[in-house]
Amino acid sequence: MCRFLVYKGTNPILLSDLILNPTHSILTQSYDCRLRLDSLPHNGDGFGVGYYTTPTLSAEPCIFTSTTPAWNCVNLSRLAKKTASSLVFAHVRATTSGALSESNCHPFSYGSLMFMHNGHIANFKKIKRAIVSAIRDEYFLMVEGSTDSEWAFAVFLDTLHSLGHSPKSPPEAQNERVGGGGGGGGGFGHGVLRQALLGTIRRLNEFLDEAGTGEPSLLNFAATDGYSVVCTRYVCSRTDEAASLYFSSGTRFHEYKEGGFYRMERHDRGQDLVMVASEPLTFERGDWVTVPTNSILTINKQTVLIHPIIDKYYQQNPAYSRSAAFAESKGMVAEPIVPSKSVKNGAKKLGVRSGKDAHPPTIPDRLPSGSDEGE
Amino acid sequence: MCRFLVYKGTNPILLSDLILNPTHSILTQSYDCRLRLDSLPHNGDGFGVGYYTTPTLSAEPCIFTSTTPAWNCVNLSRLAKKTASSLVFAHVRATTSGALSESNCHPFSYGSLMFMHNGHIANFKKIKRAIVSAIRDEYFLMVEGSTDSEWAFAVFLDTLHSLGHSPKSPPEAQNERVGGGGGGGGGFGHGVLRQALLGTIRRLNEFLDEAGTGEPSLLNFAATDGYSVVCTRYVCSRTDEAASLYFSSGTRFHEYKEGGFYRMERHDRGQDLVMVASEPLTFERGDWVTVPTNSILTINKQTVLIHPIIDKYYQQNPAYSRSAAFAESKGMVAEPIVPSKSVKNGAKKLGVRSGKDAHPPTIPDRLPSGSDEGE
Amino acid sequence: MCRFLVYKGTNPILLSDLILNPTHSILTQSYDCRLRLDSLPHNGDGFGVGYYTTPTLSAEPCIFTSTTPAWNCVNLSRLAKKTASSLVFAHVRATTSGALSESNCHPFSYGSLMFMHNGHIANFKKIKRAIVSAIRDEYFLMVEGSTDSEWAFAVFLDTLHSLGHSPKSPPEAQNERVGGGGGGGGGFGHGVLRQALLGTIRRLNEFLDEAGTGEPSLLNFAATDGYSVVCTRYVCSRTDEAASLYFSSGTRFHEYKEGGFYRMERHDRGQDLVMVASEPLTFERGDWVTVPTNSILTINKQTVLIHPIIDKYYQQNPAYSRSAAFAESKGMVAEPIVPSKSVKNGAKKLGVRSGKDAHPPTIPDRLPSGSDEGE
Amino acid sequence: MCRFLVYKGTNPILLSDLILNPTHSILTQSYDCRLRLDSLPHNGDGFGVGYYTTPTLSAEPCIFTSTTPAWNCVNLSRLAKKTASSLVFAHVRATTSGALSESNCHPFSYGSLMFMHNGHIANFKKIKRAIVSAIRDEYFLMVEGSTDSEWAFAVFLDTLHSLGHSPKSPPEAQNERVGGGGGGGGGFGHGVLRQALLGTIRRLNEFLDEAGTGEPSLLNFAATDGYSVVCTRYVCSRTDEAASLYFSSGTRFHEYKEGGFYRMERHDRGQDLVMVASEPLTFERGDWVTVPTNSILTINKQTVLIHPIIDKYYQQNPAYSRSAAFAESKGMVAEPIVPSKSVKNGAKKLGVRSGKDAHPPTIPDRLPSGSDEGE
Repeated sequence: MCRFLVYKGTNPILLSDLILNPTHSILTQSYDCRLRLDSLPHNGDGFGVGYYTTPTLSAEPCIFTSTTPAWNCVNLSRLAKKTASSLVFAHVRATTSGALSESNCHPFSYGSLMFMHNGHIANFKKIKRAIVSAIRDEYFLMVEGSTDSEWAFAVFLDTLHSLGHSPKSPPEAQNERVGGGGGGGGGFGHGVLRQALLGTIRRLNEFLDEAGTGEPSLLNFAATDGYSVVCTRYVCSRTDEAASLYFSSGTRFHEYKEGGFYRMERHDRGQDLVMVASEPLTFERGDWVTVPTNSILTINKQTVLIHPIIDKYYQQNPAYSRSAAFAESKGMVAEPIVPSKSVKNGAKKLGVRSGKDAHPPTIPDRLPSGSDEGE
Repeated sequence: MCRFLVYKGTNPILLSDLILNPTHSILTQSYDCRLRLDSLPHNGDGFGVGYYTTPTLSAEPCIFTSTTPAWNCVNLSRLAKKTASSLVFAHVRATTSGALSESNCHPFSYGSLMFMHNGHIANFKKIKRAIVSAIRDEYFLMVEGSTDSEWAFAVFLDTLHSLGHSPKSPPEAQNERVGGGGGGGGGFGHGVLRQALLGTIRRLNEFLDEAGTGEPSLLNFAATDGYSVVCTRYVCSRTDEAASLYFSSGTRFHEYKEGGFYRMERHDRGQDLVMVASEPLTFERGDWVTVPTNSILTINKQTVLIHPIIDKYYQQNPAYSRSAAFAESKGMVAEPIVPSKSVKNGAKKLGVRSGKDAHPPTIPDRLPSGSDEGE
Repeated sequence: MCRFLVYKGTNPILLSDLILNPTHSILTQSYDCRLRLDSLPHNGDGFGVGYYTTPTLSAEPCIFTSTTPAWNCVNLSRLAKKTASSLVFAHVRATTSGALSESNCHPFSYGSLMFMHNGHIANFKKIKRAIVSAIRDEYFLMVEGSTDSEWAFAVFLDTLHSLGHSPKSPPEAQNERVGGGGGGGGGFGHGVLRQALLGTIRRLNEFLDEAGTGEPSLLNFAATDGYSVVCTRYVCSRTDEAASLYFSSGTRFHEYKEGGFYRMERHDRGQDLVMVASEPLTFERGDWVTVPTNSILTINKQTVLIHPIIDKYYQQNPAYSRSAAFAESKGMVAEPIVPSKSVKNGAKKLGVRSGKDAHPPTIPDRLPSGSDEGE
Repeated sequence: MCRFLVYKGTNPILLSDLILNPTHSILTQSYDCRLRLDSLPHNGDGFGVGYYTTPTLSAEPCIFTSTTPAWNCVNLSRLAKKTASSLVFAHVRATTSGALSESNCHPFSYGSLMFMHNGHIANFKKIKRAIVSAIRDEYFLMVEGSTDSEWAFAVFLDTLHSLGHSPKSPPEAQNERVGGGGGGGGGFGHGVLRQALLGTIRRLNEFLDEAGTGEPSLLNFAATDGYSVVCTRYVCSRTDEAASLYFSSGTRFHEYKEGGFYRMERHDRGQDLVMVASEPLTFERGDWVTVPTNSILTINKQTVLIHPIIDKYYQQNPAYSRSAAFAESKGMVAEPIVPSKSVKNGAKKLGVRSGKDAHPPTIPDRLPSGSDEGE
């Protein structure tokens, strides 16, 4: 079981308002999620948070990881009260592969890029050697730990490289940086990040197909270059549900009642912040929209776009109900899936408006063929 | 919430058979107990195990503590598979006072003595200074951490000292040592340990009375000198239930079915091992006898004796049913109390036989006045 | 052995420019200082850094501590590159009293106050109980760890309280906060802090005199309220040298040559930053002025004032040369004392000008009697 | 810099007599060795000890590792006083490749085998992929950490496998186990272990030759199956000296003077214990014999055998003096090499007698061609 959380806003948020204080914060989740496990986890707890600072302090994110359970980490608690950022990744891990070690804590970073994974690659050991052989030396040698997730990040970097972009050198930032409050058009561009993440999934599927493993892999990923964010909710199956994923957007995320009761406020049609999370941070269910299984979500300047990932695991029939049993058995379903709240694949009927309206996500039927740079 | 466990046997037990493998081992308990908490613990998890080795390696116990949650501690897991002992204390801690630090992990030791506490001293801060003033310099200076429990241990040592016994120097061991397989009559003698532990509770009550605190304290203690063990199940209240405490005795504690299914075997009237635990280690409920509230349990050569602690919190009416609500609110009730299984105070009707029969506990109506050395 | 470092500037400094990069940074010192120890340290290494953030994030400092040796702490290294502050305390510890635990790491804090100690209180165990008895409950109960230094901080808070100032509530900040780039006259006022620190030393001396301990105590302290800083260089002896202490002030502290070669620049008569350190951070010896033994240094708006501490350990004879042998035996002398560079007590001949000229320190013959608020 | 130590004896030794108490124990070495480093280590300190217990507790060694510096590890200090074994490996690490993580601590183990490395593989990153491709899946997947040493262990296991022995299943133990006090002929046999270790070096050389790296690798390895021990002192150079390596053998290793002054006693021609160490544990220089560069040492039933490793880095000229400058620059020379004490390659003149005499090592001119099982 693990959980992740992404925050991107026009204004910085104090980390404690994001990860410490909400009654159902990611820390509480890591703790509560244990309720749903029926066996002793064997591979350790870990926590990590990564955030971008003002661009004057370099383009790399700052990452704090801990192998002490997050709820016990004094340093985390002190730093979170004193650190604000406009783009934050946070991750808690309970029981996936890899020993308990800071090298195994998400988010991972490389230059200005950050990456995290919620899920697991089935029978990872069967495809590890194929990954090792397929990627360039610099990403092979980058891996420090022993998790499937860090190797998935290596595949992501290699795929970005193959797209003609050096992961270490984003194109010149044309606009202002996210740390500066902007969320402008710098970095690699959301189209490039999306292509790289879709390519990562495609390659992992090829490795898995070749190895002939049976169990589906759960591939919820999040990647960012400090400007745009892309996240997948994906499972290597046409009949199973993926690990859960939600997003929420609005004008302000604030504590409306003492004791950690937070809520998303929406003051007008514009939106100033977006959160993406494995599990809702608040009990205001109306605040959280389910990301459809096997789709990719993009945050570009606080606008959310959702595209289906159309491959052999795509379920053409919008009425088909995937089974959550498998994801639940892995502890990866954060909430019982409530259909009335979820956005089904291609579910235009839910009143999802176009990206221009900013607030609700665009869900085109399929990605434009060829390049998706055009958006 | 915390849990403790005592093992004393004629033969050494492999620590992994005690603390790692049983499906409901103390590690699993520490993990599962979280199920019963409704809020985030703020003071940290810790684990400790103390055991006596062969007497040739000195009379002091060996203590291993960890601030990594026990279920993640690789060293613990490796050592437990390779270490056997005839007298073991183990403790997991989730959410009592004191920062997360190895200095705050139980069991505490001093010379050949070990001590642990399951519970909490209400409004400890109000009596801390009185404790500091009341005890001798050597025990005042011994305290390294910041928990109420370590200060209770200091009171215990000071009380033992006042009884005429230097905690550093037990009387010459007349008989063989426990590590040698015996469990003989060495050390301070079980009567002295019992007096010291009863005196500790008496003094804590005096401090608490003077401070005028309201909430009851939960004082389940365990103490040993490597030969005898004394444990209390005690609450500073006449109407509330204490934190839970059970014991089990038999000939062999073994895995009858693969997958961590352990059971206590009893082959004849003699008993070769005794376990005392905050929470049963197995789901064989018949194996576990509830220690009555406000009583003290003694293990002397694998024989269990139980005496009521008769003071102002003693409930004379055997039919009175204490309320478990308070202890439950502290996460200190391991099992719903099942009356048919519990041994009520002075409950001769349950067929509890005399100490001479060895197996079930003696429950005299009251401690002999004056000295209890005579037993 | 331990070392500390204070930075106070008009502008924030990136922590990595202060504690990571300089070739002779406090981390390197902690590592190199081992060269001077001839025995195995038994009590552990620890590291801590505390800094003030923008006032919008509350008046309390942010503190990061680590029991991993500082040079191995990945989090420290990552955070230092991303954190800037105008007022920083840093501390490394190798071998004083107290177990290895985060509770024992300096700097300590209480409300908006920070405190650290370089040295040790001789035979601390003999005066611990007297300290416990002498101070108010809130400071007695504040102590979490087991070091002499944290108890000295408790005495400091109690002394401040006795001066009529609640440590939790500084007087209304009249001017801007240091985090805002100012260094204004807010907080308790440097006179109050100085009185409290001098009172702390006076009380410790009383406890020590009563206990009749022989060996001198080394009492280099640093305290701040986020606005002003006071530091002592002090030894309880009239013939021994104190632990070393230096300061440096200028316009800019910067890397003039790649590879960690830093230097203090002075562009005009004004000074924009002050550093105080147990050991010079650079090899530019001219940058560092020795603080005279048994004196107190004040930083008020980037101006340094030095006053002698005139008590029974004050050496009236300016020509007297204290012996460094004792402090060296404790690993507390960072550099061979070079007389030509040191500022002797009352050493007017060194051309030290008055506080009004801002740059070099004022060294009046004695503190004004009564209140020293008048400066 | 790192250091290792092997103990093999007829009788168990208390770990504290081996690693804690000697004034120049491996812990002190780890601490003192810093004296010889001129720069800040970036990759972390770690410690590990592995030992075999009585065979009733399984054939696997018990391993305790710590990323806390060894001299600060309370658990290590407590366990060492209570644990005795007849075959012990200990390792301290300061500054080689791989992040600070328990996964990177030596000794490594696999089934009943233990392995450690003192040195480094030059430009390891250039040959990492070749190693990955060359070894069997089970050893590729075994690697958890990121050090060159763990990969060398994987090569060792793969080489043993290629010799026809499954690393998980030693041949049936014909004789008694070492834990039982014997040191009998069980396990894989010392000849097989020696072949596997020599094969490991041969393969590493092939990888290195192919990669064409310039700097010599330092390959001091130690491997054991719980019965026999093999150690190399090896450098990939014909002109440079290897990292230092010594051995000592005798009847008893004991503290002859309080304060950690240990000495090896020899009561008769038989020898009851052997130690191999990167650096002498005592200042009794006569107790320690230098293992010649580029040779392999075997301990079989407390008898030491030394064979030269004859390959392209073997120096035929016994009068040639290798330069220690390179090994010193890596912090791998524990003592200035004193020729009169060292045993030169094939140095019969030093009076080294044959293996039958048990005490001093056999140094045949070359390994028997074909199999070396015959000894």
